[in-house]
Amino acid sequence: MDIREEALKLHREKQGKIEVVSKVEIKDGSDLALAYTPGVAEPCKEIAKDESLSYTYTNRGNMIAVVTDGSAVLGLGNIGASAGMPVMEGKCVLFKEYGNVDAFPICLKTQDPDEIVNICKNLEPSFGGINLEDISAPNCFIIEERLKKELDIPVFHDDQHGTAIITLAAVINALRVVKKEISDVKIVLSGAGAAGIAISKLLMDAGAKHILLTSRHGILTKDNAKDQSRKEIAEITNKENREGSLADALVGADVFIGVSAPNLVTKEMVKTMNKDAIVLAMANPIPEIYPDEAKAGGARVVGTGRSDFPNQVNNVLVFPGIFRGTLDVRAKEINTEMKLAAAHAIANMVKEDELNEDFILPLATNKEVGKMVSEEVKKAAIKTGASRI
Amino acid sequence: MDIREEALKLHREKQGKIEVVSKVEIKDGSDLALAYTPGVAEPCKEIAKDESLSYTYTNRGNMIAVVTDGSAVLGLGNIGASAGMPVMEGKCVLFKEYGNVDAFPICLKTQDPDEIVNICKNLEPSFGGINLEDISAPNCFIIEERLKKELDIPVFHDDQHGTAIITLAAVINALRVVKKEISDVKIVLSGAGAAGIAISKLLMDAGAKHILLTSRHGILTKDNAKDQSRKEIAEITNKENREGSLADALVGADVFIGVSAPNLVTKEMVKTMNKDAIVLAMANPIPEIYPDEAKAGGARVVGTGRSDFPNQVNNVLVFPGIFRGTLDVRAKEINTEMKLAAAHAIANMVKEDELNEDFILPLATNKEVGKMVSEEVKKAAIKTGASRI
Repeated sequence: MDIREEALKLHREKQGKIEVVSKVEIKDGSDLALAYTPGVAEPCKEIAKDESLSYTYTNRGNMIAVVTDGSAVLGLGNIGASAGMPVMEGKCVLFKEYGNVDAFPICLKTQDPDEIVNICKNLEPSFGGINLEDISAPNCFIIEERLKKELDIPVFHDDQHGTAIITLAAVINALRVVKKEISDVKIVLSGAGAAGIAISKLLMDAGAKHILLTSRHGILTKDNAKDQSRKEIAEITNKENREGSLADALVGADVFIGVSAPNLVTKEMVKTMNKDAIVLAMANPIPEIYPDEAKAGGARVVGTGRSDFPNQVNNVLVFPGIFRGTLDVRAKEINTEMKLAAAHAIANMVKEDELNEDFILPLATNKEVGKMVSEEVKKAAIKTGASRI
Repeated sequence: MDIREEALKLHREKQGKIEVVSKVEIKDGSDLALAYTPGVAEPCKEIAKDESLSYTYTNRGNMIAVVTDGSAVLGLGNIGASAGMPVMEGKCVLFKEYGNVDAFPICLKTQDPDEIVNICKNLEPSFGGINLEDISAPNCFIIEERLKKELDIPVFHDDQHGTAIITLAAVINALRVVKKEISDVKIVLSGAGAAGIAISKLLMDAGAKHILLTSRHGILTKDNAKDQSRKEIAEITNKENREGSLADALVGADVFIGVSAPNLVTKEMVKTMNKDAIVLAMANPIPEIYPDEAKAGGARVVGTGRSDFPNQVNNVLVFPGIFRGTLDVRAKEINTEMKLAAAHAIANMVKEDELNEDFILPLATNKEVGKMVSEEVKKAAIKTGASRI
């Protein structure tokens, strides 16, 4: 049976992947009298007096919404909220398995950013945090920015920040392998969408100084940027207003990061990069360049988004742990320091004697990563005053 | 420890009562590849082609939203959405325990009916049904009516219809005890809110012909009715436009049903009722009249909402089974025939040789009831064309 049939069978036989279960036992009338009427009135009255007690007496503090409008699901594009549901359920499974975070799929019929913001605001009493998922740019920026301002619970767009954090972790360890400094290296980033922009910003927060973004129109400049978010990042990264193709940008570069489209990079292009080049070709399922080609072009460290090659760059290493830590200290936001702490925690999971060209990141199925990430995220939240306990 | 302390302890120690868990195992990379990328793209693509397949490949078909605005929580009133959360979690626990229905609490910050309707409509892709809960009148009528028209999934306001169904079941069996016919008896119903109106309508659907509603202003008439829904029910039930107090109404009545307020009925008032009077005093936690008083007044069958007296009239016997049956046949609505079928199924759970004054309903903790209700509801859905399978 191929993966298509196997995947359909799994989803069909279980009728989806999540369920809502009780944490309390209901054997008899006295259990009923505590978990439901009349006993349940007591926690209600306490929360009515002090709303923060909803974190004590309900599961809200461990529950996040995985919110999508289905506009940018995986590599499938705008397939709508109903069709996005299997991905959202999958995400909820991973939140629980890797972070013990309860997560619930909220698949919205609307793709209007104002409506999405309004709905999330009104859902706030049910949730301790919001994970935005598979929402296309530029709406994802608008929605995230407004929710961060208007909600009291943390909001995290995983396609931006989860991807940025795991990419930074990969870059940190790849640079350890080739013994270069992040502040020195020239980085070319193909893909000026939500993920590309977020990666650029986090790399700069981590000390990167030389980044060029490219889109299908070549090197991103303030003049060819097609919207406000791209214009802003072009002005920050491409101060000299360099123009040219992706091939032009790669000449003399140390690091290639791809969050764009299949087969954009050739062996010949890699050959023009600096010695000990790092290639993270993360387009899914077909990368910007396959690992054997990149190696043939002289790349020393190569990663992709796939599990069937070494160095899988997968944000399942990020989102369960970062929300675990955030919820544990009831942080009001997930700030830059918390993201940097998560990236370093992941990078540090690979010990010096394990680290090599083909092992820069822990395996996606390593359940220890989430624990370590949550610990470091908690510390960063406390240090920066984001914590509320 | 008293019930207050015990209830707070239970809620605090478990940090609420529900969790979201995975139905699939994630042991290694190949599990991940089926439940998440790349395999998860397959069910997504199938649903994108045919939206009804969301019932095949996701848990949507077994998942309902328990939606509240916190405006009428238990007997606590308008305590808000956050404070209503323990009740909604409790409801979700009972849905799962008694009906194997997955239910999720959606506690909304808004009390604007248009906004609530809009949010529910946009949440439709995540859910197979909506259970409205603890929303005050008249908004609950407005919201339910609009959602029934504008949504493709079934919508059920439990405070109205769950209460109506269990009350009808109680009336059916109480009448079996006293050997009277529903079409003959005079019924007085104290409480002209959402529950009272729904009970009146369902009793009439079941054949009742003589019903008077009373409110704090006495017998409900088309002239003293303070809103449209009360005016309509007054015109149907009180055709002769009788006026007077609750005490006046009770003279010569066969059945008293209370969904109103504590201590409204006295022993003396019960004495004026017909022989073999039935008293269902369901105000919670303090009934309209306590059972010993009602019995002293000559009532033959007495029920309350409480578990510490015989004949507890509790809609936990209704909502898990009615949604189980509805979801099983993917019914587009929960229509009158399905409600009547549920009431008769519950009544029939008490066998002829068990039935007596102090045992007119199965115990609230009897898990067989949900199964029987779901079977009968399914049959009624198929018979009336509400079923979609």
